[in-house]
Amino acid sequence: MQTVRLELGNARTYSIHIGRGLLEDAALYAPWVGAGQVAVVSNRIVAPLYLERVEHALARAGARVVSVLVEDGEQAKSWRTLDRVIEALLAARCGRDTLLVALGGGVVGDLAGFAAAVYQRGIAFLQLPTTLLAQVDSSVGGKTAINHALGKNMIGAFHQPCAVVADVSTLDTLPERELGAGLAEVIKHGLILDRSFVEWLEANIDRLRARAPEALEYAVRRCCELKAQVVAADEREAGPRAILNFGHTFGHAIELGLGYGEWLHGEAVAAGMVMAAELSSRAAGLPRAEVTRVRALVERAGLPVRGPAIEGARLLQLMQGDKKAAAGTLRFVLLEAVGRASLHSGVALQLVAESIAAAAA
Amino acid sequence: MQTVRLELGNARTYSIHIGRGLLEDAALYAPWVGAGQVAVVSNRIVAPLYLERVEHALARAGARVVSVLVEDGEQAKSWRTLDRVIEALLAARCGRDTLLVALGGGVVGDLAGFAAAVYQRGIAFLQLPTTLLAQVDSSVGGKTAINHALGKNMIGAFHQPCAVVADVSTLDTLPERELGAGLAEVIKHGLILDRSFVEWLEANIDRLRARAPEALEYAVRRCCELKAQVVAADEREAGPRAILNFGHTFGHAIELGLGYGEWLHGEAVAAGMVMAAELSSRAAGLPRAEVTRVRALVERAGLPVRGPAIEGARLLQLMQGDKKAAAGTLRFVLLEAVGRASLHSGVALQLVAESIAAAAA
Repeated sequence: MQTVRLELGNARTYSIHIGRGLLEDAALYAPWVGAGQVAVVSNRIVAPLYLERVEHALARAGARVVSVLVEDGEQAKSWRTLDRVIEALLAARCGRDTLLVALGGGVVGDLAGFAAAVYQRGIAFLQLPTTLLAQVDSSVGGKTAINHALGKNMIGAFHQPCAVVADVSTLDTLPERELGAGLAEVIKHGLILDRSFVEWLEANIDRLRARAPEALEYAVRRCCELKAQVVAADEREAGPRAILNFGHTFGHAIELGLGYGEWLHGEAVAAGMVMAAELSSRAAGLPRAEVTRVRALVERAGLPVRGPAIEGARLLQLMQGDKKAAAGTLRFVLLEAVGRASLHSGVALQLVAESIAAAAA
Repeated sequence: MQTVRLELGNARTYSIHIGRGLLEDAALYAPWVGAGQVAVVSNRIVAPLYLERVEHALARAGARVVSVLVEDGEQAKSWRTLDRVIEALLAARCGRDTLLVALGGGVVGDLAGFAAAVYQRGIAFLQLPTTLLAQVDSSVGGKTAINHALGKNMIGAFHQPCAVVADVSTLDTLPERELGAGLAEVIKHGLILDRSFVEWLEANIDRLRARAPEALEYAVRRCCELKAQVVAADEREAGPRAILNFGHTFGHAIELGLGYGEWLHGEAVAAGMVMAAELSSRAAGLPRAEVTRVRALVERAGLPVRGPAIEGARLLQLMQGDKKAAAGTLRFVLLEAVGRASLHSGVALQLVAESIAAAAA
């Protein structure tokens, strides 16, 4: 097991544990069980695979466990499902000292994390990410949210977990498409922050797709280290943390245009990163050869390099409704080089339109 | 104008301004208008009285204002109404730098504050309380929430305002019953924290009911000072802040038993304080003469001293579902003396039942 610390300079600093078989390790749960009441939120796909062993390990750590299952997929990030989780906690008489455990991918983590943020004005929660995307990205950093018909993640909170336990053996059973979606966020971390990690990815992308355990474990750890540094420097995204949204302004527009869940989040981000690389070459000086390199790596990961069949003008319109639009103007994360990103405001819409067209070519 | 500071030891420390005619003072708004986008949440009762002058003053301070009106009453603290507020903000393209302004009583403040807490993971908000209850209590301290069918304020967040502007001239138009409900929280602050303030209240309760401006202004200021001290010491209610819930465990059960809105919150707290005083004499050594004194002051304020026609056993059951129940056991705020309160766990249910019966006699 390896442990990465997310330093928040106070009592909220927490550990991210990465290894195989961790879900069954009661010692990892024991510090957080507290008064004993634990509620596990999972979904109908993940629960049959892992819920029982998590419940048993929690019980060995002294917990009384109630479990709540939600539907699979992005549509679970809704008022309706949130209300069902809260109703289940109330029905089980969960008090303010309850530990909420999120067992699943990014959707379960975002939803359960938001439920923990608002239940009785905030209770502790523990992330048990079971997808690559959740292990390398969404379970770390305290962003929780549900969606609104007018935009993704529009309703949420910054609510840090007390710990993250990333059991990489759960990736053995992950559907191919979900693995790919996670690789998109892996690639993102390299592109914005670490050129040598991109080189490692270029050398190891096939091993990752083949699920070589040590390659996966290294990728998860490196992403957690990179993300932990960014979050530690800017927990509430006042500024620099926004570079983690590379590819996401385009990606969210794709998801919104198709309807949530049509493409996986990571797939939309993948195509969005290619668009963002095109825009980077037009507005931030990224060499054309690097654009080609980004596209090639995304493609080798088995991910879409072109957007879906949505008009460029429509995508642009959807982006302008995105919450990253500050006072009506679009803000983009762009690469100056592979491994170095920064925020750009006031990018000409014409260049954005051209980039969408170029990525579609 | 008088100003009370709520010291949070960091950038979130804020001012509570108290005086007459403040709603029209653009200088009080100017520091918070920021990038210029402001959303005012109010209700259909308050808006006709004050919204236009607030909008004008905000405009003079440089704001572009969008206003959202919600229904009046406790039923507005719902998912449905929260979603309407968020939808209106999204439709108006409000970004993360939007200032949300709550113009109204406790319901508007709780609802709008929670909307500000979760909109795009948190935006700034300004409290403009227009009821006595909101000015002396709910607008100060950052507690925001909506209700759930299974319990009051079960879904919420700690989200401090950037400032509170309490224009006491708004109390001139406050319905009699609302004024009384506010007096319940005024009395509460004295009972738990300040014996000499209770003496002042005993001497001035008739002037308060007659809305003597200087008496109201003093009462609002003193309550804000008392509450600010408690909140500064324990922002997230890890411990001592809970004394502000004096009378509320009983009061919430009354509200839940009757259905929200049948009795005003302050009315339920008033009867709850009499029950809590009875329990204090049984479990915390409060002299009987002080119980009589509490009851007399509540009665002179025009407030109910007896609970509604709900069986004592049913009230007890409702209390055990309250969120202040830690791991199934009830916790009460009790008085050792007028002006001194503390938390008590493990109070015998028999004494609670007796106290409910005694208060009904």
